[in-house]
Amino acid sequence: MAQSMMLYWGSGSPPCWRVMIALEEKMLQGYNHKLLSFEKKEHKSEEVKALNPRAELPTFKHGDIVVNESFAACLYLESAFKSQGTRLIPDDPAEQALVYQRVFETNNLQQKMYDVAFYDHVPEGERHESALKRNKESLIAELKLWDGYLEKMGKGSYLAGKNFTMADVVCFPVIAYFPRLHCPRERCPRLMEYYEMLKDRPSIKASWPPHWLEKPEGPDTLKNL
Amino acid sequence: MAQSMMLYWGSGSPPCWRVMIALEEKMLQGYNHKLLSFEKKEHKSEEVKALNPRAELPTFKHGDIVVNESFAACLYLESAFKSQGTRLIPDDPAEQALVYQRVFETNNLQQKMYDVAFYDHVPEGERHESALKRNKESLIAELKLWDGYLEKMGKGSYLAGKNFTMADVVCFPVIAYFPRLHCPRERCPRLMEYYEMLKDRPSIKASWPPHWLEKPEGPDTLKNL
Repeated sequence: MAQSMMLYWGSGSPPCWRVMIALEEKMLQGYNHKLLSFEKKEHKSEEVKALNPRAELPTFKHGDIVVNESFAACLYLESAFKSQGTRLIPDDPAEQALVYQRVFETNNLQQKMYDVAFYDHVPEGERHESALKRNKESLIAELKLWDGYLEKMGKGSYLAGKNFTMADVVCFPVIAYFPRLHCPRERCPRLMEYYEMLKDRPSIKASWPPHWLEKPEGPDTLKNL
Repeated sequence: MAQSMMLYWGSGSPPCWRVMIALEEKMLQGYNHKLLSFEKKEHKSEEVKALNPRAELPTFKHGDIVVNESFAACLYLESAFKSQGTRLIPDDPAEQALVYQRVFETNNLQQKMYDVAFYDHVPEGERHESALKRNKESLIAELKLWDGYLEKMGKGSYLAGKNFTMADVVCFPVIAYFPRLHCPRERCPRLMEYYEMLKDRPSIKASWPPHWLEKPEGPDTLKNL
């Protein structure tokens, strides 16, 4: 099946990374892929646009099925290969509810991380210290929430309980930015333990962003959070 | 089952509305609910916070299961009541892929609509004509995308094909803002036909925002889009 798949991706992009983790977890190694450079704007190429009118990465195709939104691709893979590899969405509705809750909450953490770490993407004349300060406060509160979730579930827990699930697939690539960008450990000690627990998991190691391997230290954008 | 459910909601909030449409489609009429006022900050009450650390609406509980993210609540309801009411997620993986794709793309449409319609939520000293202009261009491009999806699928189509699905449940409440806020029809003629086709659907009519019923005309925030 993996031979009929094609993934266009960019190194370090949380949306791309989560699809790659899902592919690994579902034992779909051997899928075709093409690493594109955001810097060179290769994601704006005709090749990508033919499959993705948003000209964004990831762009993912399986046979004739095109599914580009990263969360959608992950859910699709789980559904199409339910009994293959890791079961990422449990059958029990109560457990499912928590998985879905954390999957969708990931958007909050991701956006708030972007709003601080990539604040310099705001055009220069439109930046305000007051806005950055507010973004930072909002991110700190968000981290506290997630740290609380892990604290409540106890040592060694995954994001939605005792098992690795879709919540971990979609959220880990966001969480990995915090140590990389030098976020102070005390802002989210439980999340950092969780990061340590997961960073060598085979699916995650196999899909680790290549430019992070080359340069393990990221900029210290979150140092003063 | 509906008697063991409790929904805290606010009138006109797309996230609340989509959960209410899902409840209607799954034949869960009779659920307990409490309408709260955003203006009076009733969503910041202890009653809500006890269930939702984000103190946001919707806040939704079914028995002991709490699931507050609106998309997550919708997916949970479909899963827990799969064979009851409308089937919102098809079995076929190819059809499913398109439903998931449109469900997650809804976040783009919603955010871009907010970024224009509610630009005055940006603190006064931080507003810029250049930012609002960019937001408007981005929203116009987004509308063009969605209009193209409908155009391609043909007259009378729902967002993910010939059947009403989860994509319609989650996206309709966002689409309904465009006519309400006087968006020029030519910006998205197919979306406006789609709106006309769906606005009297029982699940949608039954959950129509009460303050929209009282005041059918909204402000003309999108008039100059």
